[in-house]
Amino acid sequence: MGAPVERIRVRRLPELAVTDPAVLRDILDAGMAGHVAIVHNGQPFAVPVAYGRSGDTVLFHGSTGSRLFRELAAGAPCCFSVMLLDGLVLARSAFETSMWYRSAMVLGRCEVVEDQVPALRAISEHILPGRWELVRPPSRKELAATLVLALPLTEWSVKVSAGPPESSPEDEGWSPPVGVVPLRTVRGALIEGEA
Amino acid sequence: MGAPVERIRVRRLPELAVTDPAVLRDILDAGMAGHVAIVHNGQPFAVPVAYGRSGDTVLFHGSTGSRLFRELAAGAPCCFSVMLLDGLVLARSAFETSMWYRSAMVLGRCEVVEDQVPALRAISEHILPGRWELVRPPSRKELAATLVLALPLTEWSVKVSAGPPESSPEDEGWSPPVGVVPLRTVRGALIEGEA
Repeated sequence: MGAPVERIRVRRLPELAVTDPAVLRDILDAGMAGHVAIVHNGQPFAVPVAYGRSGDTVLFHGSTGSRLFRELAAGAPCCFSVMLLDGLVLARSAFETSMWYRSAMVLGRCEVVEDQVPALRAISEHILPGRWELVRPPSRKELAATLVLALPLTEWSVKVSAGPPESSPEDEGWSPPVGVVPLRTVRGALIEGEA
Repeated sequence: MGAPVERIRVRRLPELAVTDPAVLRDILDAGMAGHVAIVHNGQPFAVPVAYGRSGDTVLFHGSTGSRLFRELAAGAPCCFSVMLLDGLVLARSAFETSMWYRSAMVLGRCEVVEDQVPALRAISEHILPGRWELVRPPSRKELAATLVLALPLTEWSVKVSAGPPESSPEDEGWSPPVGVVPLRTVRGALIEGEA
């Protein structure tokens, strides 16, 4: 896994930048969906995708009928971003009110994964561990309709904001409750049923 | 608020496309952060941002020191995307395993908001209703360091996936638990403290 390079160096709030690839992997493993940015006719698009990780590669899939996915498959430059919101930071001032977050951005070009099933399995296991063994595997026809893409974790940046609220002498006289409201995603019980 | 136009028409799974602007507003109001995609030297970037909504405009802010924010302020084409994950859809087949989601994508060019305080307040109220009244308002110096941008809800698309798992005759013999695992974001109790 490569180190962050110049065009993706964190310039804003560089004290929040993280260069440890283990943190990148942790963020990717903790998220369920991200956004892939791609340019078409000069217009950027940020497209939501579920994803998985296999070693130093992000995996995601789309339809062979999707124009943007075909462009990704053809090697168009892209950016894959994931953001996890961990808390709301309540400071004394509007300016320092912020969020706890972990965000990762990976730049590069995708490769088409020819060996689709292990990659689709990795995406499935990422989100629903153990589920793959229980369900009907993809048919040849379903695989033919699916583009599986791999983006290497070569050029990336990570930011982690996890500190307490900041205050300044200007805040004197302002005494709202201050601290952090933690955020977490909860999975409920299965609501059984099907179409 | 304009209708979705050709370059953003939902082509994949068009049965999930929603053209009611009330749904767009609901999605924007339910989310806390999104991604802004922008192109720099041919490379797309998807940058996480907190945001708010005021009428038919998405509002977000960044630092005047951010190169990408300065490019947005100069009117570079962008895409603002928000995705809400509402559930995990457990089907009998790998192919139909999916998610409940609501996603919105807004294309356009930002305008710089000169009257910063009401816009910053709208962003704050979006995420932390009532908080703005309790905190120190931004100082002149803090405002000078902040770019507030507005993106009109003119060209947009929305997709909503909320149906039960689909099955097919091929799935016969596969009987895992099927249904939907709901996902929700929970705010915990304030952990008091500051730096």
